[in-house]
Amino acid sequence: MQVIRSLAQARALFDVFGQPIGFVPTMGALHEGHLELVRQARSECTTVAASIFVNPMQFAPGEDFERYPRDLDADCVKLTETGVDIVFVPSDDEIYPAGFSTAIDVGALASVYEGAIRPGHFRGVATIVAKLLNVVHPQVLYVGQKDAQQTAVLRKMVRDLEIPVHVEVVPTVRDSDGLALSSRNAYLNAAERAQAPSLYRTLLALRDALEAGMSKSAAIQRARSELGSLAVLDYLDVVDADTFEPLEAMRPPSFAIAAARFGATRLLDNVWMPHG
Amino acid sequence: MQVIRSLAQARALFDVFGQPIGFVPTMGALHEGHLELVRQARSECTTVAASIFVNPMQFAPGEDFERYPRDLDADCVKLTETGVDIVFVPSDDEIYPAGFSTAIDVGALASVYEGAIRPGHFRGVATIVAKLLNVVHPQVLYVGQKDAQQTAVLRKMVRDLEIPVHVEVVPTVRDSDGLALSSRNAYLNAAERAQAPSLYRTLLALRDALEAGMSKSAAIQRARSELGSLAVLDYLDVVDADTFEPLEAMRPPSFAIAAARFGATRLLDNVWMPHG
Repeated sequence: MQVIRSLAQARALFDVFGQPIGFVPTMGALHEGHLELVRQARSECTTVAASIFVNPMQFAPGEDFERYPRDLDADCVKLTETGVDIVFVPSDDEIYPAGFSTAIDVGALASVYEGAIRPGHFRGVATIVAKLLNVVHPQVLYVGQKDAQQTAVLRKMVRDLEIPVHVEVVPTVRDSDGLALSSRNAYLNAAERAQAPSLYRTLLALRDALEAGMSKSAAIQRARSELGSLAVLDYLDVVDADTFEPLEAMRPPSFAIAAARFGATRLLDNVWMPHG
Repeated sequence: MQVIRSLAQARALFDVFGQPIGFVPTMGALHEGHLELVRQARSECTTVAASIFVNPMQFAPGEDFERYPRDLDADCVKLTETGVDIVFVPSDDEIYPAGFSTAIDVGALASVYEGAIRPGHFRGVATIVAKLLNVVHPQVLYVGQKDAQQTAVLRKMVRDLEIPVHVEVVPTVRDSDGLALSSRNAYLNAAERAQAPSLYRTLLALRDALEAGMSKSAAIQRARSELGSLAVLDYLDVVDADTFEPLEAMRPPSFAIAAARFGATRLLDNVWMPHG
């Protein structure tokens, strides 16, 4: 596996490596969810490129940018073992040189749920991914369903701006108890870790209640009571999978989405509806 | 010359036509200024593509979107005669399908001068040009110096987002009396047309006064008095050519910029400094 650090090297990839190129952008702290993206890219593309960049633009002041887990050596071992050809590890200065000021905003979709709680987050996500796509120009972009709203933001940006890439959304990888894998799971203490799978169970209960014909308000109330005092819920809702507008009834394509804090750690999860 | 109307056809250009591709995006109502962009593209590129699209996103409510001059047949004759290979004439629906909501914002540069007077204008410009670049993917983008702030916005977007295109700025073409060519000159009545060259003369006077060592405030005051009652000045200033931050002293690269209304018609002009 080749490790490259400059934009100039990354721009040259397209002329050197075989196509199609599959691209997996990450913030490092890699787990099986990321590696599942790599495996899918490996099975579909001639060249697999990944990137590791903890993107300051997608963290709001006071969030966990500084303490976000970083372990480049371990990440590179995992990527090599999973068959990545190139990993791009740019510096902050290369991505955000002095005077950088451009941002991509996908509109209303970026200002609800995660976007409401983390203002500017999706501008940061959309902007870094557009920039990485312009540098690497892969044919396929692999993103994880765990960050459902992020996948919707990126699909919308790609569609609206006609960015020449196919976005492939890879199903969430879970621990045996149902907890969605996330780099932020490392923040959980033992008690919180034991409670964290309740987020997924809450979403499944919501889905099941809706599928059984319960009204949305009743189903959400029941799901909230099942989560009980285990966590502080930021939101729990059923939304259109493309626009993230709330849906009163269940209809595909939609997501049941939730975010909750277990202690100081904020976790996200979702269930693709009507297929769990 | 091939006239294409769908995004699908435009996306296929890159595989069909020889490279480098030079691209001249326009809103039609073509004059010698546009054709100068085409000629420069023709002399430097294997394939020359133009586009004609009156972009609603860059007009604010109440501006001249509806009455903006349109004459596709005459435009196509001019483009053919000047050696354009392909002209892309998309419909509004192709560019802005239902639900379109993405915008590119280059930051402070887009909120001063033209950006202050026309809120959202440069978001519209940046977004449409990014989209057209993603569809046509030319190696060289040709833009006219007459819209100096627009060229700065586009160069900034390209640099910040690493869009793989070279931006070439082509000098302003003027009538024999100095008036910068503009599609909006067609709005001027005879009296206004006779007065309109005073805008350029005002900019030259400003430049000359600064070069002679006059202070900026005195030079601007004198230039304003030279323009006198011929027009209503929106702004007159000397700015950094990249950031459009006002400069107290003249230093390259910079522009002297002005916008003024002659009757109901708003005209822009600029002088590249220190070379007029």
